[in-house]
Amino acid sequence: MPEKMTKSSNVVWHQAQVSREMREKQNAHRGAVLWFTGLSGAGKSTLAHAVEEKLHRMGCRTFVIDGDNVRHGLCADLGFSDVDRVENIRRVGEVAGLFVQAGVLTLTAFISPFREDRARVRSILGDDFIEVHCDTSLDVCESRDVKGLYKRARAGEISDFTGISSPYEAPEHPELRVDTGTDDLGVCVDQVIAYLAGKRVIRA
Amino acid sequence: MPEKMTKSSNVVWHQAQVSREMREKQNAHRGAVLWFTGLSGAGKSTLAHAVEEKLHRMGCRTFVIDGDNVRHGLCADLGFSDVDRVENIRRVGEVAGLFVQAGVLTLTAFISPFREDRARVRSILGDDFIEVHCDTSLDVCESRDVKGLYKRARAGEISDFTGISSPYEAPEHPELRVDTGTDDLGVCVDQVIAYLAGKRVIRA
Repeated sequence: MPEKMTKSSNVVWHQAQVSREMREKQNAHRGAVLWFTGLSGAGKSTLAHAVEEKLHRMGCRTFVIDGDNVRHGLCADLGFSDVDRVENIRRVGEVAGLFVQAGVLTLTAFISPFREDRARVRSILGDDFIEVHCDTSLDVCESRDVKGLYKRARAGEISDFTGISSPYEAPEHPELRVDTGTDDLGVCVDQVIAYLAGKRVIRA
Repeated sequence: MPEKMTKSSNVVWHQAQVSREMREKQNAHRGAVLWFTGLSGAGKSTLAHAVEEKLHRMGCRTFVIDGDNVRHGLCADLGFSDVDRVENIRRVGEVAGLFVQAGVLTLTAFISPFREDRARVRSILGDDFIEVHCDTSLDVCESRDVKGLYKRARAGEISDFTGISSPYEAPEHPELRVDTGTDDLGVCVDQVIAYLAGKRVIRA
């Protein structure tokens, strides 16, 4: 090792590099990020996990990044202030970028209400960024209120709650818009899978 | 989708969950983190990438996390103060944990000079943490000085340089100690691979 390393560590480095292309060939699909955005209760996590399950069954390498696995870990130091929310989304974007380099079909599920934050992630990920708007009306989300958050937000117990006391800036030109308000889950899943096949991210 | 989601989003969530075990079965190997630690110039990155290449050829899913892919991205907001170094290693540990959940054999290459920081990562990763000490004497590292950093550190141009003006706390009980100072690169790679096979992380 000393011989090779002292002469030129760069050469050794590049010789040993496993490239993204090599991983994608191994996986027989491309790496990409499905960025699910939408109101609380719009179905982001549910759809992301359902899409992941289908992709997994198809033999793809997948991973879902959501509040459950980053808020207690990577972003445990962050609260819910504006600054911290921006940093939270930035870190998720960067980590998603690492997963893409690893050849993984990555799915993220965050409200990510601000266009500017999503634009920043898009600039990190470039063509690997697939914005999926889980389009459900506020009325429907509030009537579901699975976690009881809307009730608490209306009661003033939660401040800056997206859709109630803080804006949700809907994507203007998302790669994909999914009607998670009225369509069946299976229909939404098929729509996402069809998109990936059409873009040759996965094999049809 | 609304039907299933409003009745119980938790049920849908769990039905759709792709577990770590499912990924590991798909990959035919376990997820784990090979945490390479050692002085600058000890051969951490070189060894990590060489091990990765071998694992990739064996059909494993792998990823190397190192300064090159986090310092300009996920940790671009961090400098080299004590506080920032601690946070840098913490984030890398957390991200490595996500990759393990994704079933990936993850390799990290950071000096990570302080026992306390590595102990924190070990507490995050538990049994998935495999500490690999790239054991090379300071003399050898300094004589290699591939990046010219030791020369600059001796000239006082870099402060808190590990081994020169800041301590390197060698692991007391690493899972693996590799003699990157005298052994050939191939020997070191084989030693790491043999360890993984012995622990049944990969198939022999």
